[in-house]
Amino acid sequence: MSRRVDEILSWYEGDDAQTLGNLRRILEQGRTGGTGKLVVLPVDQGFEHGPARSFAANPAGYDPRYHAQLALDAGCSAHALPLGAAQLVAPGFASELPLILKCNSSDSLYVGADPEPAVTAGVEDAVRLGCAAVGFTIYPGSAFRNRMYENLRSLATDAAYAGLPLVVWSYPRGSGVSEQGRTAVDVVAYAAHLACQLGAHIVKVKPPTEMVESPAARKALDKAGVPLGTLADRVRHVVQSAFDGHRIVIFSGGAAKETAAVLEENRQTALGGGSGTIMGRNSFQRPHDEAVQLLHDVMDIHIGTSARQPELATH
Amino acid sequence: MSRRVDEILSWYEGDDAQTLGNLRRILEQGRTGGTGKLVVLPVDQGFEHGPARSFAANPAGYDPRYHAQLALDAGCSAHALPLGAAQLVAPGFASELPLILKCNSSDSLYVGADPEPAVTAGVEDAVRLGCAAVGFTIYPGSAFRNRMYENLRSLATDAAYAGLPLVVWSYPRGSGVSEQGRTAVDVVAYAAHLACQLGAHIVKVKPPTEMVESPAARKALDKAGVPLGTLADRVRHVVQSAFDGHRIVIFSGGAAKETAAVLEENRQTALGGGSGTIMGRNSFQRPHDEAVQLLHDVMDIHIGTSARQPELATH
Amino acid sequence: MSRRVDEILSWYEGDDAQTLGNLRRILEQGRTGGTGKLVVLPVDQGFEHGPARSFAANPAGYDPRYHAQLALDAGCSAHALPLGAAQLVAPGFASELPLILKCNSSDSLYVGADPEPAVTAGVEDAVRLGCAAVGFTIYPGSAFRNRMYENLRSLATDAAYAGLPLVVWSYPRGSGVSEQGRTAVDVVAYAAHLACQLGAHIVKVKPPTEMVESPAARKALDKAGVPLGTLADRVRHVVQSAFDGHRIVIFSGGAAKETAAVLEENRQTALGGGSGTIMGRNSFQRPHDEAVQLLHDVMDIHIGTSARQPELATH
Amino acid sequence: MSRRVDEILSWYEGDDAQTLGNLRRILEQGRTGGTGKLVVLPVDQGFEHGPARSFAANPAGYDPRYHAQLALDAGCSAHALPLGAAQLVAPGFASELPLILKCNSSDSLYVGADPEPAVTAGVEDAVRLGCAAVGFTIYPGSAFRNRMYENLRSLATDAAYAGLPLVVWSYPRGSGVSEQGRTAVDVVAYAAHLACQLGAHIVKVKPPTEMVESPAARKALDKAGVPLGTLADRVRHVVQSAFDGHRIVIFSGGAAKETAAVLEENRQTALGGGSGTIMGRNSFQRPHDEAVQLLHDVMDIHIGTSARQPELATH
Amino acid sequence: MSRRVDEILSWYEGDDAQTLGNLRRILEQGRTGGTGKLVVLPVDQGFEHGPARSFAANPAGYDPRYHAQLALDAGCSAHALPLGAAQLVAPGFASELPLILKCNSSDSLYVGADPEPAVTAGVEDAVRLGCAAVGFTIYPGSAFRNRMYENLRSLATDAAYAGLPLVVWSYPRGSGVSEQGRTAVDVVAYAAHLACQLGAHIVKVKPPTEMVESPAARKALDKAGVPLGTLADRVRHVVQSAFDGHRIVIFSGGAAKETAAVLEENRQTALGGGSGTIMGRNSFQRPHDEAVQLLHDVMDIHIGTSARQPELATH
Repeated sequence: MSRRVDEILSWYEGDDAQTLGNLRRILEQGRTGGTGKLVVLPVDQGFEHGPARSFAANPAGYDPRYHAQLALDAGCSAHALPLGAAQLVAPGFASELPLILKCNSSDSLYVGADPEPAVTAGVEDAVRLGCAAVGFTIYPGSAFRNRMYENLRSLATDAAYAGLPLVVWSYPRGSGVSEQGRTAVDVVAYAAHLACQLGAHIVKVKPPTEMVESPAARKALDKAGVPLGTLADRVRHVVQSAFDGHRIVIFSGGAAKETAAVLEENRQTALGGGSGTIMGRNSFQRPHDEAVQLLHDVMDIHIGTSARQPELATH
Repeated sequence: MSRRVDEILSWYEGDDAQTLGNLRRILEQGRTGGTGKLVVLPVDQGFEHGPARSFAANPAGYDPRYHAQLALDAGCSAHALPLGAAQLVAPGFASELPLILKCNSSDSLYVGADPEPAVTAGVEDAVRLGCAAVGFTIYPGSAFRNRMYENLRSLATDAAYAGLPLVVWSYPRGSGVSEQGRTAVDVVAYAAHLACQLGAHIVKVKPPTEMVESPAARKALDKAGVPLGTLADRVRHVVQSAFDGHRIVIFSGGAAKETAAVLEENRQTALGGGSGTIMGRNSFQRPHDEAVQLLHDVMDIHIGTSARQPELATH
Repeated sequence: MSRRVDEILSWYEGDDAQTLGNLRRILEQGRTGGTGKLVVLPVDQGFEHGPARSFAANPAGYDPRYHAQLALDAGCSAHALPLGAAQLVAPGFASELPLILKCNSSDSLYVGADPEPAVTAGVEDAVRLGCAAVGFTIYPGSAFRNRMYENLRSLATDAAYAGLPLVVWSYPRGSGVSEQGRTAVDVVAYAAHLACQLGAHIVKVKPPTEMVESPAARKALDKAGVPLGTLADRVRHVVQSAFDGHRIVIFSGGAAKETAAVLEENRQTALGGGSGTIMGRNSFQRPHDEAVQLLHDVMDIHIGTSARQPELATH
Repeated sequence: MSRRVDEILSWYEGDDAQTLGNLRRILEQGRTGGTGKLVVLPVDQGFEHGPARSFAANPAGYDPRYHAQLALDAGCSAHALPLGAAQLVAPGFASELPLILKCNSSDSLYVGADPEPAVTAGVEDAVRLGCAAVGFTIYPGSAFRNRMYENLRSLATDAAYAGLPLVVWSYPRGSGVSEQGRTAVDVVAYAAHLACQLGAHIVKVKPPTEMVESPAARKALDKAGVPLGTLADRVRHVVQSAFDGHRIVIFSGGAAKETAAVLEENRQTALGGGSGTIMGRNSFQRPHDEAVQLLHDVMDIHIGTSARQPELATH
Repeated sequence: MSRRVDEILSWYEGDDAQTLGNLRRILEQGRTGGTGKLVVLPVDQGFEHGPARSFAANPAGYDPRYHAQLALDAGCSAHALPLGAAQLVAPGFASELPLILKCNSSDSLYVGADPEPAVTAGVEDAVRLGCAAVGFTIYPGSAFRNRMYENLRSLATDAAYAGLPLVVWSYPRGSGVSEQGRTAVDVVAYAAHLACQLGAHIVKVKPPTEMVESPAARKALDKAGVPLGTLADRVRHVVQSAFDGHRIVIFSGGAAKETAAVLEENRQTALGGGSGTIMGRNSFQRPHDEAVQLLHDVMDIHIGTSARQPELATH
C-alpha cells in the first residue's frame, strides 16, 4: 500500500471502510497501481453511438469480454461498462479487474434538443455483479439537468450504504451552453466543481479549450490573472476547481485521434495535475497489441510526470 | 440436457439458478428443445390491434386457451401473452408450456406521435401465474424511450429477484427514426445491442433490410467491409451486435404473409445465425392444422441449419 | 350454489379463494342469483354530473342510503358507489348487499380535451368498508389512457392480494376516437378486450351501434362475414371479444330513456349473450316502486333468455 | 354528551373510535358545544394573501398565538392553521382548543391560470402536534383538480389510520368555471357533493348566489321546482347535496364585510340548515373584544335557530 | 447557557430535545454565542455561480476546508455548505463547528425562465456527516414554487425525525414577481412569513427595499400606517411578519460590496430586530485576516445593538 494512495484516501475520510476499500482497489490496480494515477477503459459506446460505429473497426470488440481482457492485458485501473455487458463480463472478470457499473446512458436513435440519459442500472446491480464502483453521467447545461442531479443523489445515497465509490462523468451540454462552450475552460471547471459538490469520488471531464464561455467568469479569471494559455494551465484550473485538487479528476479524449495527439494531450493533463485518463475509442478501436502499447505509453506519461506535478494538486 | 443448451446458458452465468432453470426450460421445450433454437408463439395482437383484426380470420383464437393449445400442439418453445389472457390460460397450461408474461402493451385506440406503451403487468403477476419469463417492449427512437428503459430496468430488477429471464422486444419507432429506417440494418443492430445492454436474456427484433439509416454507421460499415447484401448477412451483423452472438436473438415476421415468404425469411435468419423466430399472426390466423404445419416447417429450418450456421454465433 | 355459477367461476380459477368467494357472492345475490346473470345498480352520477342533474328528479336519492335500499328492494346483484357514499352506506348495508367501491371518477366542473379521471379510493378503503369488489373506469382513446391502465394495474395488484374482484368500466373516449365512434361496434369490442387483458373479472361496456370506426377492423369483419345487423349480433361480437365469452360482460344504457327502449335493449343484450346490465339513472331517477318494477322486468328478461342464449357464450 | 352530537356521529359510524372521538371533541367544544353547530376560526390568510394584507389591520395577529387565544376567548369549536403556526401554537393550546392542521395552501406571489395549492403538511405533523383534525382545500374546476383529489385521497388514507377527521374546503375555481360561477348555487352544491364523495367529514363551502352555471343543472332544478330564491333556500339545496344533510356543511364569508351583512348571511345559513360558519378575516381583523362579540352573535344565531331548522337537515 | 437563548428556544417548544439541542448549539457557538444573535458563513457560491467567480479572488477558497477554518477563526455561529464540500469538511470540523447541510442548489449553466433548484442532499446525509442543521432554498414567485415547498415539506418531515433544525433561504424570484420586486418590502415580508409557515426554524431573507410590489399590500400598509422609510423600519416589518418575531430571521447582503455599506446594512438590520446575518462573498473573497476582521465587526454590531432592539422582537 503506497503512501500516495493513503494520502488520496485521506481526502475521503468521511466515507466508510468499504467505500475506501473499493477506492483503494482501483488505485492499487494495474500498471499505475500505487502511484495515485488512474487509466480507465470505458466501453459504453455501443449504447451511446451504436454497435457498428463502435466496434466495426475492430470486430473483436463486439464481445464485451474482449474489453475486459484488454483492460487486464494493458494494466488498466478499472473498466467502466453498462449493465448488459457487466452481466456477461462480471462472472469471469469482476474479481480480477475493478468494474465500474455505468448506471445511466443515452442512445442516439432519438436525440432531443437537450440531452437526457436514462437510468439503466443501480447499486443493487453493482452489488450483485461484484462491481467496485458505480458511474453516472450528468449533463450540466441541459434543461433536464435537475433530473440527472436528483437521480445521481439517489444513486449516491444507495452507493454510500453499499460501500461503492461514485464516478461522475460531467459533460456540459444542452441549450444552456454553446456548442463550443461545452469544452470552454470555465465550463469544464464548473462541471468538475458540480460533480464534486454532488458527491463524486472520481470526476471525469473533457480537456478544456482556451475559450471562456461566461463573461463573468472571464472577468474573475482575468482579474485574478489565472494562466490559461496551455492545456496544462487549464487542467490546473480544473483540478483546482475540484476542491483544490482533493478529488480525483481524470480527463478523456473523446473521438479517436492520432497517437501523437493522444500522447501530447496526456502529457499536458499530467503536467497540469490531472490524475489520469479514461480512454475508450482511442484504445479499443485499434488492434489489441497496438491498444495495449498506447495504454502503456499513456500510463507511463502519467506515472513519469507524477513526481513533477505542481504542488497545487499534491498536498 | 443438451450440450448446446449448456453452452448457451454459460453466457448467462452471472444469473442465479432459478433464472437459468427457467431459461433452460424454454430451451428444452418442444420440437426445437435441446437444439439451442426457439420458436415462440406470441399473442398480444388483440391488445395491440384489436380483437377483430386479430381473431376474426380464425375465430377460435378469440379464446386465449386456443393459442396455448396451438403452441403445445406445434411444439413451440414458449407462448407470450398479456396479463388477462395469462389469468385464463395459466391454470391449465403453465406447467406444461413456458409462458412469457408480456408486461407492457400499446393499444390502437389512441396513437400518438411517438409510441408509449403502458406497463400492464409485473413480476408479481408472473410469479403468481407460474410464468417462465417476463417480456417487455421498448421503442428506441421514441421521445418516450427513456421511460420505457427505466420501466424495463425496474422490471429487470424485480425479475432478477424472482428468477425470471427477461425477453425484450426491441422495435425502433417514433420521431427519432424514419418510417423505413425502423428496419434499416444499422437500426435493427443498434436495437438488438440496446436490448442486450439493458439486461435482456432473449432479444426479439425484426428482419433487417438493406437500408442503412445513419450516415456515421454507413461509414463505419463500409470502412470495415461488412457484407450486408443478403438477409443472412444482415442477420449476422445483428447477431454480432448482440454481444457477438452471446445473447439469444430471435426474429419476427410481422404482418401475415405467404407461406413461401415466411419460410425463406426463416432460412435466411437461420443461415445468419439467428436463434429462431417469434411468429404470431402468420400462424394463429391460419386454421389449426395449417398453423401447426407451418410452425413445424419453420422449426425444421432452424434445427436443420443449426449444424451449418457460421462459426460466429456458435462459440 | 348453482352449476352455472360454478361454471363461470371456473373461468377464473387462477384467482384465490377469497376473490372467487366475492365473485360468487355477487353471482348468488338477489333476484338473478344463481343464474349467471347480473343486474348492478351504480350511483356515481353525483360525482360525474353533479347532484342536481342526478338526484333532483327523485330527491330521495340525495341520501346514498336510498340507493343501497333500492338495490336491496329490487334484488340487484351489487351496488357500485364512490368512497364518500360507501362510508355512509357500508355500516348498514355491506353485509347484506355486495358493494363495489368505485375507485376513480371524473367530475364535470373541469372538462379537458381528453378525459382523465382521478383515483379517489383504493383497495385499503374497500377492505375497511367490507366491499365485495373494486371498480375502475378506463377511457381507451384518451391521451391519458396509459395513466389509467397503469393505475388500474396498481389497483389490480392490490385487489389480488386482498381477494377482491375487479370490475372495469371500459368507455372509449378522447381524441383517439370520433364522437360517434365511442359506441362503434369494433371500438366497443376492442374496449371489452382491453379490459379483459388488463385483468378485469367483470367488464362493463355500452351497447354497440352498427358503426365500424376502424377501416382495418371493417375489412377484417367483412372478410370473416361477422353479422352485425342487430344489437344482439353486435353484443355477440363484443362478448366474443371478451375471451370468447369467458369473462362476464355487462352493458349499460347511459342517460335515462323510455321504459320500452330500456327493455328492448336488454332483450337484445340478453339474446347476444351479455351477462346482464348495469342501470343507474334509468332506475334511481324514477319513483321507488317504478324503479323496482323496471329492475325486476330487466332481470326477468336476462333470466328468461338465459336458456336461449347462443352456444358461443355458454361453454 | 348531547343527543344531537350522538345523532351527527351516527352518520360516520364507519369510522373508528378515535376519529369519532376527535369529531365529538370539536362538536362539544366552546359556546356551540353540544348543539350540533360549529363556528371555526381559520387563519391561513398570511400564507394565502401575505402578512400585511392579513394582519396589518390588527397587528396582534402577526403572532399566531393571538388567534388561538381569540378562538378560546370566543368559544370557537376549532381553529384551523398551517404547519408553521401550528408548531408555535400547539404546545400551549392543542390540549384546550381543537386544532385543524391545514395541509395544503397557495400563496399569491405566483398566480397561475388555474389554482394549484402545495401540500405543506401531513397527518404525521398533525399527530406530532396533537391536532384534532386535518384540513385540505380542493379547487374543482381547476386543470389541476385531479392532483388535489389524489393528494386528498392520500391524506384521507393516512388520516383514517391516525383517527383524524378530514375537513375539506371545496372552492370551485379555475378555467373550468366562470368567475361568477364560482359561487353559483349549482356549482357550490356540486362542490359540496364532491367533498363528501372524496371522504370529507366536514365540508366548507361559500354561500351560494342565485346564479346557476350549468344549463343541464338549471334544467334539472327547474323541472324539479327546487326553490332557490333566498340564501336559505340555496343553502338548503347545498346541504341536501351533501348526502341529504348527513355530512356537516359549514359556510364562510370570504373578505371582511359589515357586521350586519355577516349576521344576515349567518341567519340565512342557519335557516337553510347549514351547520355553522368558518370566519377568518371578518373576526380577527377587528379588535379583540369586537371580534369576540361578533363571534358570539354568530354563534347565537346558529344555536338559536337550530330548533327551527327545516326537517330536511335534522333527521 | 444564556437566558436569551432559553427564551428563543421557548418559541420552538413543540420540537423535540434533539432539535432544540442543535438549535442551542448554533446559538451558543462562537463570538455571538449566548446573545441570541447569529452570523453564518455560507459557501455554496461554487455550485451557484461557478468556481472562478467564487474563488479566483481568494484562491485559498477553492479548498472547502478553508471556509470551515475561516468560520472557526472568525467565531461564526455556523457554516452552510453543499453535500460534496460537507463530505470533505465534516470529518475535521463537524464536531467543532455547527454545519448546515444545504440540501438543494441551482447551477448557472442552465438558467430557465423560472428558477428550479435540484435537491442534492437529504437528512440521511446530514446525519451521516454530523451536521447540526439542514438548509433549503425556496423561490416564491417561481412557477416551480410548489415543487420546492413540497420538497421542503419532505425534508422537514425527515429532519423532525432526525432532530435537525431547518434553515430556509426564502428568495422571491421568477415570473410571479418583477425583477425589482424581489426585494420589495412586502415581498420580503411575505417570503419570511411563507418560510415560517412551511416550518423553518431559521429564516434567511434579503434586506428589503422601500418598494411595495402588491397594490393590495400597499393599501393595507398605508391604512395601518406602517413605517417603512428606513431599512430598520422595513426589517422590523419583516421580523414582525415572521410570527411577530418568534422565529429567527437573518439577512444577507448578496454580492460583494464595500465594507462601509456592509456595516451600515448590518446596523440597520440589528436596529430593526433582525437576528443576524449570513455573509458569504463579502467575507470569503477577502484575504483571511480582513475577512475575520469584517466578520468580527459585523458580529459586534449585532451584539452591541441587541440591548437596544425594539420591544417588538424581544418578547
